[in-house]
Parts: sequence; C-alpha cells; structure tokens
Amino acid sequence: MALHKNKISLRLRRVAIDTYRENVAYLNRDCDIYRAEGFQALNKIKISANGQTIYAVLNVVDDASIVQPGELGLSEQAFDQVGADEGFSVQIAQAEPPASMDAVRRKIAGARLAMEDFRDIVFDIINNRYSKMEIAAFLVASGESGLDREEILYLTRAMTESGQRLNWHEEIVVDKHCIGGIPGNRTSMLVVPIVAAHGMLIPKTSSRAITSPSGTADTMEVLARVELSPSHLHDIVRQERACLAWGGTARLAPADDILISVERPLGIDSSGQMVASILSKKLAAGSTHLLIDIPVGPTAKVRHMREALQLRKLFEYIGDRSGIHLEVIITDGSQPVGNGIGPVLEARDVMQVLANHPDQPADLRQKSLRLAGRILEFDPDVRGGYGYSIARDILDSGRALAKMEAIIEAQGKQPLEHTLGKLHFDVSADSSGFVTAIDNYHMARIARLAGAPMDMGAGVDLFKKVGDRVQKGETLYRVYAEFGADFEFARAMSVHKSGYSLGEESAIPKGYMEI
Amino acid sequence: MALHKNKISLRLRRVAIDTYRENVAYLNRDCDIYRAEGFQALNKIKISANGQTIYAVLNVVDDASIVQPGELGLSEQAFDQVGADEGFSVQIAQAEPPASMDAVRRKIAGARLAMEDFRDIVFDIINNRYSKMEIAAFLVASGESGLDREEILYLTRAMTESGQRLNWHEEIVVDKHCIGGIPGNRTSMLVVPIVAAHGMLIPKTSSRAITSPSGTADTMEVLARVELSPSHLHDIVRQERACLAWGGTARLAPADDILISVERPLGIDSSGQMVASILSKKLAAGSTHLLIDIPVGPTAKVRHMREALQLRKLFEYIGDRSGIHLEVIITDGSQPVGNGIGPVLEARDVMQVLANHPDQPADLRQKSLRLAGRILEFDPDVRGGYGYSIARDILDSGRALAKMEAIIEAQGKQPLEHTLGKLHFDVSADSSGFVTAIDNYHMARIARLAGAPMDMGAGVDLFKKVGDRVQKGETLYRVYAEFGADFEFARAMSVHKSGYSLGEESAIPKGYMEI
Repeated sequence: MALHKNKISLRLRRVAIDTYRENVAYLNRDCDIYRAEGFQALNKIKISANGQTIYAVLNVVDDASIVQPGELGLSEQAFDQVGADEGFSVQIAQAEPPASMDAVRRKIAGARLAMEDFRDIVFDIINNRYSKMEIAAFLVASGESGLDREEILYLTRAMTESGQRLNWHEEIVVDKHCIGGIPGNRTSMLVVPIVAAHGMLIPKTSSRAITSPSGTADTMEVLARVELSPSHLHDIVRQERACLAWGGTARLAPADDILISVERPLGIDSSGQMVASILSKKLAAGSTHLLIDIPVGPTAKVRHMREALQLRKLFEYIGDRSGIHLEVIITDGSQPVGNGIGPVLEARDVMQVLANHPDQPADLRQKSLRLAGRILEFDPDVRGGYGYSIARDILDSGRALAKMEAIIEAQGKQPLEHTLGKLHFDVSADSSGFVTAIDNYHMARIARLAGAPMDMGAGVDLFKKVGDRVQKGETLYRVYAEFGADFEFARAMSVHKSGYSLGEESAIPKGYMEI
Repeated sequence: MALHKNKISLRLRRVAIDTYRENVAYLNRDCDIYRAEGFQALNKIKISANGQTIYAVLNVVDDASIVQPGELGLSEQAFDQVGADEGFSVQIAQAEPPASMDAVRRKIAGARLAMEDFRDIVFDIINNRYSKMEIAAFLVASGESGLDREEILYLTRAMTESGQRLNWHEEIVVDKHCIGGIPGNRTSMLVVPIVAAHGMLIPKTSSRAITSPSGTADTMEVLARVELSPSHLHDIVRQERACLAWGGTARLAPADDILISVERPLGIDSSGQMVASILSKKLAAGSTHLLIDIPVGPTAKVRHMREALQLRKLFEYIGDRSGIHLEVIITDGSQPVGNGIGPVLEARDVMQVLANHPDQPADLRQKSLRLAGRILEFDPDVRGGYGYSIARDILDSGRALAKMEAIIEAQGKQPLEHTLGKLHFDVSADSSGFVTAIDNYHMARIARLAGAPMDMGAGVDLFKKVGDRVQKGETLYRVYAEFGADFEFARAMSVHKSGYSLGEESAIPKGYMEI
C-alpha cells in the first residue's frame, strides 16, 4: 500500500448509536488534526478507509469517553459500511456536494431531465451521497406534476439498474403488488400459495412496514423466517415455485428503499414516484407479468375513481415500455380488508382463510380469489374468465394451505408461536345503527401506536365492518398492546376518535367494483 | 404539580454531542419503558420536561455508558432548550407530524396558500417541529415559481412576526443589505461609519458565514466583540448612532435562520425566499429606509441584468406593501470586491480604506462611497445627487475612521490582534496576459477550504484583479491557512483550478454600472 504524504489519519472507532438510515460521524471538538467546526456547517464529510469511501453527517463530540481527539467515531450503520476494525486509520475530507444535485436544482427550476441525469442522481443516492434534505428536495421537485411520463420512465430505468437484477430463465414469472394504504390487506399471503399451487412461478418479496402497522414481510414473519440470503431464496423458489420473503436482502432497486425512507415520513407520495418505485422493484426481481391492485376509497391512498384511472394509465404506459406484461385492478378500498391489523392478527386471518375456518374474514378471501384468478389467467392455458373458479378450487381443496405450509417449512417455520399482546381494551359503539365507514388511516394509526409492527402481537381486531348493524355498547374493535406506554398512546387516540362512523342503513356506501 | 397517572418518566441526561441545529434524543435500545425502535422510524419524538415541550429526532443507543436504559439523552442544543438539570423526569411521546405540513403538501400539489398557512408553517418551524427534510420540502415547493407575489408578502409578514420587533422611535432608521455571493464585499463596515458620522441611525446587524468564507459579523469580530445582548446593543446604538454586530442574539425573524440553514447547503436560493428572508429581518429590526445591493456578474448569484431587474421589482413590491422605503442598486459583481477574502484579510482592507492607506483597494472604497451616498440621500436635508460627495468628505476627513474606532470601542475592542495564518502558498500565472475574469464562487471555495471563517487568519489575498496585466510566473493570489489539512485541501483545489482567467486585453469585460 502506497504511503500517502499529507494525509493525516484518525483512528476509527465504533460508536454504538443507531442513526437509522443516516450515516453519522463523530469528531472530538479538540481534535488537533481537523477542526470539527469547520466541517460541521457543511453537509457531509467523506471518509476513506480500507479502500472504501463513505459519506456521513458530522456531529461534534465534547466527551472523550464517546470519541477522543484523534479518533473518528462512526455510528453503527456507517461503521458497518466501512468494513474496517476499530483502530484502523481513516482519512476525512469535506465532501463536495453530490454532482447530480445540479440536475436536482435544474428540476427545481422546472427543467426536463434526461436519462443520464436520473442515472447520476440514483447513483449518488445509492452511494449515500445525498442527505435526507437533499433527497427531500429531489422528491418534492420531481413529485406531482414535476415529472412527465418520459421522465418517470427514465427514473424507473435508473432505479431498476441501480442494483442486482434477477433472471429466472422462465417465460412467465408472475407478481402482484398493491399500492398500499389499506390496513390488514394481506392478499399476497393467499395469492402466492394459490398461484404457486397451480404451478406458476411467483417469487414474492415484500417490504416491511415503514409507516403502516404491518407489511407483508412483518406478517409472514409471524409464521416463518423472512430474512433469507439471495441464494437461499433462489433455492426455495426453485423448489416451491414461490416464496414470501422480505425483499431487503436482495439489493433489488436499492435506491427505492432510500427514497421511501424520506417519502413516507414526509407524507408525500406522487404517482410518478410510486410507479417508478413499484415497477423498478418488479423489473429488478425478474417479473414478466404483474398485477397491480389500486384500492379506491375515501380514506385510501387513491380517493376517486378518476385518479385511479389516471394512475392505471401511467402504470400501463411505463409497464409497456419496460417490457413487462402489466394489468391493473381497481378494488374497494373503503375500509380495512380482513379483521386483524398488526402482524399476529393478520397472520391469523390468512391462516383462517387457507384453512376454510368458519370465522374467516369473507372480504379477504373474496379479494384474494379475485386477484389470484386474474394472475392465473396470465397462464396461456387458462381460458379468459376461468381464473377465479380455478383459484377457488385450489383454495377450497386445501392445496393452497398445503403449499403455504411447504413455503413456511422451506423458509424456516418460527419455533415459537407468537401470541397477542398481553394488554387490551375494547372500543364500543356509542349509539345504535349501521357501520357506514371505517377510517383506514386512523385504524392504522391506532394499531401502530399500540406497538405494531414492532410488537407482533400488538394491533387492532375489528369486530364490525362496513354494513354491519351494531347496538349501542357493542364492541366495535379490540386493541392489543404489549407495553403500558403504547397501550396508553393507543387508548388516548381511540378515545380522541374511534375511526368508525355509525348511521342509517341508507348511508352505507356501495363498494367500488373491479374494473 | 399534579400527579400524572400513566405517564412514565425517563431520567434526563446530557449527551455531550453537538448536533448542529438538529435536536437529537438518545434512548437505550433496552429501555423497558419505551421501545426505542417503535419511535425511530417516525420523524420526531416529543419530549416534555419542566413545563417545556421540545421535539427531537431519535437515535437508538447500544452503549449504556452513553445512555442507560431508563434515561433519555439529549444532544447539547436539545438539552439547553429543555432547560432542566440532569436526572430530571421527562416524558416522551411519538410526535404528531406538524399540522402545517398539510399546507406544505397543498403547496407541493400546486395550491395557493393563505396568510394563515404561512403563519402556521413559520410557527411550527420556530418551535422546532420541522425536521430538515420537512424544511427542504417546504423550500423546494415554495421555491422558484412556487410562490406568487402575494404569497411572498405573506411569508415575509409571517417571518417578521415570528420573533421580536425593534422600534427605535425615530423617523429614519436606515439599513443596507447585499444579496451576497461576492467574496470580500465588506461595504457595510465602511457604509455604517460614514452614515453614522453624518448622524443617521444605522443599527446594522449581520449574519455569520454559512457557506461563504466570511460574513460581516465574522470580519467585524476581528476588530471587536460582535455577540452583544439586545440591551447592550441598544445602548451602543443610542450612543454611537450605529453598531456592527452579529444579529443572532436579537431573535429577529428567527424562522429565517432556520430556513437558511437548510437552503444554503442545498444550494437553492429562490428570489421569493430571498426577498422574504431579507425584508423580514429588516422589518423586525425596525428599519424605515433600506438600500438593497444586487451584484450582477457571470459568477455572482444574479447572472443577468434581466434577472436583476426582475428581482428589483419583487423587492420594491414587497417593500412598498410592508411600509419600508426601499431602494435597489445594481452593482458590478464580476469579481470579488477588495483584495482580501477571509476575516483578517477583509478587516485589513476595510481599515486601509478608512485610513486612506496607499495600498487600499480602490474598488471597495468606490463601491462603499456609492452605497453610502445613496443612503445619505434618504436624509430629506441632502439634495439628490449630493450623497456621494458628502460620503467622500466624511471618509477623507477621517470622521468615518473616528466613528469606526468609537463603534469598536463601544462594542469592545479585541484584546489581541488577529494575525494571518502561519501557512501560505502562492498561485501564479501560467501565461502572460490580462486578467479577464475571477470566479467568485471558486475563490470563496478556496478561502473556505483554507479554513475561513473559522480560522480568522485563513483566506485568500488577491494580488491581481480583472483588467490587470500579468506576466507569466507572477503571483495572482496568496492563500493563508492555519492547519495542515486545510492547507492541503485549499492547495489541491487551486491546483485543480486557479479561478483566474487570463486572455487578451480585448477580452476584459466592461463592468455593470449602477442603475
């Protein structure tokens, strides 16, 4: 290794602080090699060690027990990225702002960006060159009407190319995706075993919840391991024609995960970003046929049919130009799907449907069969219109349950059964009438405050759904929590507002139908 | 104090980490009261202690020597805000996203915001409810063409009202402001003593550098104390008719400082934000008459005359509706003003002009006289066109120097003379010819890398200016630094690109003239 003159080194130290998706470096204020304050006002510093370069925000430390002068501390995730031991020599420098921020500024000024610009932006993002505020700037500038259809296509391509791409070497690799926003909507865990039992290849990877009370990966984890290495996942898919795993290990479209980590807390979710995010992940995963589920309802992400149709056109435009066979289904998003919200409760719903249990939530079964039926019709041998009944046969015959059990076995069954949270309270009707609406957003919020998805047994169990008649004092839903503080947060929220609307029978809305 | 049932407390602890304008809270992962991970994915937590509520980003700690389970650590600035001792009981809760983010999302969607929306946004910002990415979202959404003139007026008003407002109880309170971007441009330190020597009230507060190599407050600090309490400042102004102090102690338009701390690193600077920022500060400071300096040049903030004129109209529109007498002067921004860049070097230039020293930079003298002359004409007793010659008489007679010395004495003269950095290198011409351009941005960057403004003696001393003839090998500029690492950073940058363009005499551009 060459001797670098003039490069003055600091000793690397791991600082046991988890800074959640933002690299942070710690420098003692009395460091006599670099003046910490000079770096601090800047956006990021560049850290070179062990042939690696990473970027981090700088915090200045006034406590030598955390970081001594002459040391460079790195937060847990930053330390892992450097991949060197403590005591290793590292150099730091003021980081130039990422070059692609020029393109972001041009976008802010209203310019149209080229394919090359999106490639540069995505490259800088996956290399941790962007701070959260720079990502926010990009997202806002390219949100809403900020991107035209060609630019959304460029962004999709750039994100697809930003990580690994899988190739299953089969003609038909199917997938489904719901744009989200509906609690309890665990159709994937039913669609996947049905479709795989038919013999189609459906290597389903899902995300964990970010701001929702459970993602498919969180719910599946109640039953089986979901963090599997890419090679292990590959073997499972080859054996079972399916998997139900967390997508994070595969490094598919990694830029997307970073963008989402800013988008969600900001509560911005433009259609262009959404389409690019979903399609880049599916393209990277090697899907050839994709069904997109757009739920529409007054408290869903998409609130009006006209918006849903607009979004469908955009999916179709980008899908067609990306060489994926894509179909969009618009579904009823007027209330949560199934009864449970939260990992354990949702897993219970799924297993009840698979086992044809008398208490199974009818809406979850019905919706899953409809989605599975559409996917089965991607099979050239299935006659148009027959998918639904094939799906129903597979479910009712127990073949879907058997397939689910095989998938669970292959991924690694959870040794212990997860139970519901030990604390609970009921929310009951303050008048008699009919349930006319259930606020998706609010129910998700209560479940989340109760501890979901972190506490798998926390969540909300809905006893009544839209259209049900209730008597004053009857229980509408039950909230489960594991920790006292969470219990109180959730209770305070449900006292503030239950999330249920009760009214006359005539006020029960008619659901949106499949298109 | 009432006993709060169900409110489970943590013990407060100061964590000696300086997180630079972002409150950070630290919770041990094994805390058995609150589950740290549940909070982490969220944007912020709300911390209640001692009757105070503050908001902070949460980091999870895996080292009990930093924070123990049962403790809540706060970074230095967050700890100061709470104003309680270590060991004090604090409660935490998930912070609701700031309510005014709804308005930001409406702005992202293209809506026009009302006065009330801007008030709410500014209120939440000064109460630390916004994370940096939320501020970035607001800035981008309201940048460029995002705000119409009425909205800029609303934003100006909301920012003006966000903090204290001074009232000097005089009919004419003058001020000047340059929109920035020109290194070395320390005209305020000449205009203030000239104008005050004439008897006008000019209570000048300035900012410190954020991304530039020196702000007026940094340069003035070479000579005198600049961090003065509001009441002390008031006494000085009453006595001397002027001050040259740092504006940070006065809590004038505090929202502006927070916005700027995100705007600058992002490199976004829309005219609407700029006008609202400048005018809110001046209105809060009680100014009645204001001169705005807009330098125009190829490497200035404003690059074309047409933009400068547009910006002037916007200043006039908002100024007129805010009850301030405002004039705009468009000046030559084609190169740095004066010879020095960096606090000590700029202070030297200023004192040379005041003392009529033979080495004084002619352009700094000339520009300052022009600005001072325009301000003197705010005095109803000064005949139009005579301001310049009155300013020149005041400067040449030594009355401006005497006034400056009085101001320095009143604010508190620095006991030690600051000296130039002990390391230096020269950059010389690689060919013979005429200086045809000096890149403002690049020279600022070199000075900053060399350590300015943190090291007062660091910076760049320009030996040649635009129009000067140079021989190959002649020194163009000298760079001073205090620390070896900075010295190397600055040298590497000047080797990469000197920032000077040399060419034929015919290529020397003609400067922009005053309008």
